[in-house]
Amino acid sequence: MFAVEVRDHVMIAHSLPSPVFGPAQGMHGATFVVDAAFYTKDLDDNGLVVDIGLALEALAEALKPLKYANLDEVPAFKSKITTTEFLCHYIWQQLRDTAKTTGLGDGGRVCRIKVSLEESHVARGWYEADI
Amino acid sequence: MFAVEVRDHVMIAHSLPSPVFGPAQGMHGATFVVDAAFYTKDLDDNGLVVDIGLALEALAEALKPLKYANLDEVPAFKSKITTTEFLCHYIWQQLRDTAKTTGLGDGGRVCRIKVSLEESHVARGWYEADI
Amino acid sequence: MFAVEVRDHVMIAHSLPSPVFGPAQGMHGATFVVDAAFYTKDLDDNGLVVDIGLALEALAEALKPLKYANLDEVPAFKSKITTTEFLCHYIWQQLRDTAKTTGLGDGGRVCRIKVSLEESHVARGWYEADI
Amino acid sequence: MFAVEVRDHVMIAHSLPSPVFGPAQGMHGATFVVDAAFYTKDLDDNGLVVDIGLALEALAEALKPLKYANLDEVPAFKSKITTTEFLCHYIWQQLRDTAKTTGLGDGGRVCRIKVSLEESHVARGWYEADI
Amino acid sequence: MFAVEVRDHVMIAHSLPSPVFGPAQGMHGATFVVDAAFYTKDLDDNGLVVDIGLALEALAEALKPLKYANLDEVPAFKSKITTTEFLCHYIWQQLRDTAKTTGLGDGGRVCRIKVSLEESHVARGWYEADI
Amino acid sequence: MFAVEVRDHVMIAHSLPSPVFGPAQGMHGATFVVDAAFYTKDLDDNGLVVDIGLALEALAEALKPLKYANLDEVPAFKSKITTTEFLCHYIWQQLRDTAKTTGLGDGGRVCRIKVSLEESHVARGWYEADI
Repeated sequence: MFAVEVRDHVMIAHSLPSPVFGPAQGMHGATFVVDAAFYTKDLDDNGLVVDIGLALEALAEALKPLKYANLDEVPAFKSKITTTEFLCHYIWQQLRDTAKTTGLGDGGRVCRIKVSLEESHVARGWYEADI
Repeated sequence: MFAVEVRDHVMIAHSLPSPVFGPAQGMHGATFVVDAAFYTKDLDDNGLVVDIGLALEALAEALKPLKYANLDEVPAFKSKITTTEFLCHYIWQQLRDTAKTTGLGDGGRVCRIKVSLEESHVARGWYEADI
Repeated sequence: MFAVEVRDHVMIAHSLPSPVFGPAQGMHGATFVVDAAFYTKDLDDNGLVVDIGLALEALAEALKPLKYANLDEVPAFKSKITTTEFLCHYIWQQLRDTAKTTGLGDGGRVCRIKVSLEESHVARGWYEADI
Repeated sequence: MFAVEVRDHVMIAHSLPSPVFGPAQGMHGATFVVDAAFYTKDLDDNGLVVDIGLALEALAEALKPLKYANLDEVPAFKSKITTTEFLCHYIWQQLRDTAKTTGLGDGGRVCRIKVSLEESHVARGWYEADI
Repeated sequence: MFAVEVRDHVMIAHSLPSPVFGPAQGMHGATFVVDAAFYTKDLDDNGLVVDIGLALEALAEALKPLKYANLDEVPAFKSKITTTEFLCHYIWQQLRDTAKTTGLGDGGRVCRIKVSLEESHVARGWYEADI
Repeated sequence: MFAVEVRDHVMIAHSLPSPVFGPAQGMHGATFVVDAAFYTKDLDDNGLVVDIGLALEALAEALKPLKYANLDEVPAFKSKITTTEFLCHYIWQQLRDTAKTTGLGDGGRVCRIKVSLEESHVARGWYEADI
């Protein structure tokens, strides 16, 4: 299996309103350094999984609603708890939709996506699945 | 598949008493930066794989016998060669036991664990398996 | 000059209420990975700049008011714009006070402190000065 | 599954002669930081996946034709587009051959190899497959 | 002293035509991950050294002639040996000119600049001076 | 001021026999990732601070007595407490001697050296001085 992975980041505020989150129940925030990996079984005629430039654009587009956002006020997250893991899955869904509509210019070859969010130097999460 | 991964470290001494280890046969040591990843198929009602705080505690507990230790004198490692790979598996076993006894507070959802040890900026090892 | 540097982190929310901040004027947040370096001219009888354990404790103590905080509601920051640079200086002041009151157990040998905050993989700030 | 991974690097020039590469069509270059991971199902009697020293030697040997090279003039790459992904696969093939001829001293236990190339702090690629 | 530092990168080809460079005399290349740090004695009324967005723009502008370039063909480098150190100084000069013409929107407060180029995971260079 | 910095590492065992070290009084160990920076006021005719290859050789040579060593048994460290800071200074002295005897091939231009040891992802030390 081949893959290319590109990196971007967002800086968000949110609260995690459940007792399990202890001190993180109140309004706080995070920088999420986001890695998005696209997998294909083969390379195309140009030797590519997907074009890295298009992959960076697709990731930037998927992150746009999160950039400098208060996630408690983002309509898409209403009544959701926006944990790192949840956000991995949310971004994964956006990138899957981009891939499905050939927004990656890959002719439908992308078969798997992994989205990782690093929330600090000691913790990260990811979601990975076939599309 | 979802995952969260947390990081801690240990600073140990050991010898690797077999000719294959060349200059590392004698007493030397290592800082192991340890990443432990916990995998689940789904998120719980709080949007969690496992609570990152509990994951960090479970990892710290698993590492306790290794902290500032001379592994040649740790009873659990008697007659073992404590390579990076061996230690990945040892820590993995401790975390699997924690997961099995619900020490991660995850209601038995964790289905896979990966333990990675970085021994330097140019070498690392890992063990990964379903539990 | 000798130095030891230790690392910790905070995850905060804040707004930056001035037009110069563009999209960051509203409520958003950041993970700040914080490095605190302590400088001395000489080593003590134990070969130390300062004890790394005490340095980590001093940094954790300085960061306590920022942990999972909404900086817009922290009394110490009332009417302040809590930029990365401003926070470097604020944490530097806390650590200087700790050093001055011998909280680092160094007998007054620390002569300079540097505090760095990494806000993402592409941006960081620091404040460094003699104490 | 167990794995050990070792790191080395190459600094190469190449052109990517297809319109899809935009500004990268002309002669430019890259530092590729290369990670090679070797997987085994079990550890040998010395507690090893493969000897890290031998793994580093195998990787250095595989990278020799790429060190300070202009890939446009490397015979093995004639009429190929030497993308990051293509090079992952090329290096993977070299390491597979080394493993197959027991150059890793592992007695044929290596069952899978992964080769990752980091081309910058925001982009990387990899190829991973059973051997 | 305060500082903010921002990161970008370039991927270049060049030759280093002097016997001292050994295998690097021929055409090869590098990814340079570039960090540019701007220093001020004080913060402005918004709590800033310089605006991080403007700093990123200034760095991107300084790097424009180097992006995907063959440095052997860049007019500004005619008869120059484009070592890592030389390029640090070249980029430093561009950023100094930007600072001098108030392109950083800092009202002339920037008093020192440092430019670092990481050429691999084991080597980097920098140039730092008052402006 | 110009600088180039190169990286290598050692994996050592040692004990720190003073009560101030708490759990680190007994035999334990560390991987030290070592960065050595060489400073010059100007570049030579080849555009160099020092040749990176020679700098890497000089660092490897300075680290030779520490590679896979039990520092408690290294004659040069008899009755010394081999803290991270102490070792920074020891390696600095070796590199200064190399520079003074023109082992860096720099014609005596190196005027300052910095040696940094990273002992884990959360702690490091350094020594820096003119030579």
